[in-house]
Amino acid sequence: MLSINPKEIPVPKLHHYLLGAVGPRPIAFASTIDKNGNRNLSPFSFFNVFSANPPIMVFSPARSGRTGETKNTFDNAKETHEVVINIVNYDIVQQMSLSSSPYSKEIDEFEKSGLTPIASDIVKPYRVKESPVQFECKVNDIIELGEGGGAGNLIICEVVKIHINEKVLDENGMIDQHKIDLVSRMGGNWYCRADKNSMFEIQKPITTIGIGVDQIPEEIRNSKVLTGNDLGLLGSVEAIPTEEEVNNYNATKGDKHQIAKSLLAEGDIMDAWKVLLSK
Amino acid sequence: MLSINPKEIPVPKLHHYLLGAVGPRPIAFASTIDKNGNRNLSPFSFFNVFSANPPIMVFSPARSGRTGETKNTFDNAKETHEVVINIVNYDIVQQMSLSSSPYSKEIDEFEKSGLTPIASDIVKPYRVKESPVQFECKVNDIIELGEGGGAGNLIICEVVKIHINEKVLDENGMIDQHKIDLVSRMGGNWYCRADKNSMFEIQKPITTIGIGVDQIPEEIRNSKVLTGNDLGLLGSVEAIPTEEEVNNYNATKGDKHQIAKSLLAEGDIMDAWKVLLSK
Repeated sequence: MLSINPKEIPVPKLHHYLLGAVGPRPIAFASTIDKNGNRNLSPFSFFNVFSANPPIMVFSPARSGRTGETKNTFDNAKETHEVVINIVNYDIVQQMSLSSSPYSKEIDEFEKSGLTPIASDIVKPYRVKESPVQFECKVNDIIELGEGGGAGNLIICEVVKIHINEKVLDENGMIDQHKIDLVSRMGGNWYCRADKNSMFEIQKPITTIGIGVDQIPEEIRNSKVLTGNDLGLLGSVEAIPTEEEVNNYNATKGDKHQIAKSLLAEGDIMDAWKVLLSK
Repeated sequence: MLSINPKEIPVPKLHHYLLGAVGPRPIAFASTIDKNGNRNLSPFSFFNVFSANPPIMVFSPARSGRTGETKNTFDNAKETHEVVINIVNYDIVQQMSLSSSPYSKEIDEFEKSGLTPIASDIVKPYRVKESPVQFECKVNDIIELGEGGGAGNLIICEVVKIHINEKVLDENGMIDQHKIDLVSRMGGNWYCRADKNSMFEIQKPITTIGIGVDQIPEEIRNSKVLTGNDLGLLGSVEAIPTEEEVNNYNATKGDKHQIAKSLLAEGDIMDAWKVLLSK
């Protein structure tokens, strides 16, 4: 392992390690106005949702690593206490990136990016029409984390109105994770598109309590064929099959661990157990 | 658009909209101990990095939406003010999911998940050996956002030591975004794996200032062939080609917008401009 004391390396290098390890990060495409009504639009990937009750999102327009200056978005949020957080999908990613050019304060990034400003219902900043979900927010609090270059600022926002493009909803009126086509930020110049190539499901253990990897017989735990993910799946069952169930199962002949691995890859956890426990 | 006042819908539905729209979300696999030294390990996707100077991460173990109770991780962080945030890659995603089973407080999720606890250098909670990057953190502050079910709690952490598995580093000692194989959380049961199928690059406009979509001639802006992403790329150049450059370019015959679109898909923004501006 490479072990690092963050105080002993330059901030740009530390910045790299933090952004290269924590990701993919969702993007807040933040629309604000200053007290004179000048529009600003800029993306921030130091962002997430943190609470549903009340509905709270936090994003951080950090001080410039090069100049130490605050960003227009920070100044505006501090001045007017309102922001619209627009969600970024693949269709607007290039226009979003363009809006992050270091345009001077008087420039309207809606015009520069070619995205369409539409009025909000409750707050003054405009929404991005092309964004699939737009959150109108009031700023509850701002926490400045430092004074130097690269210092973050927590903008703690409460969502007061949500707008969702019906095109991303499923037949039950809920957001379809395939239709919304989200884009998120990684280290360097990298982005990640959440589409069918990269998405996978794991059933949530909300109420079920898995037996745990510690309850898997040693011979299986120490398998050279089964991976940590395979063991995690085997440990997620509430009970292993009974002797009768194992005896009644007509297991394919061959290497038990290999057969179990294939069954796990198909999601057949109980059948994998039956193969592994068969005599 | 579907427009929603968050105060007028049930918390579980609001929770769904927030988690379905904000994503993919990075995962803090948080290791804590209580004052008696009992270990806890649990994943949280209300998480991100927010500052490099000082290095600050925030995660939120929210109150249970069903019972309103706080989580063990929250109780431990409040009691001992220390946490290790372990990063989750694809290799440990099933064991991570298993650890999120609602095990009771005395159960050690390191044992249940089969992951290996290793001692930290500065803080008392253990690191996850199998995690590619481990952040030892001191808790600077905790902000409780509410009292009801689904209320978040901002655990504001300062990174005091970073451990990186050399296997995820490139030849310059920096984190390779392909090697680290990050996994992030989406709505429902969905996860996203950041791999070569889903990752793409956009050059960062740190110092360059694009001309903007507003400076693109109207005939091109109103194209039925070029998308918003195409226009975003065209607007990202610092200057359009000169008349001489356009005249010297040997453009392929055919529909100019279609040819420009193909060139943009290959990253040839200047050539796309030359085709579009040719007589």
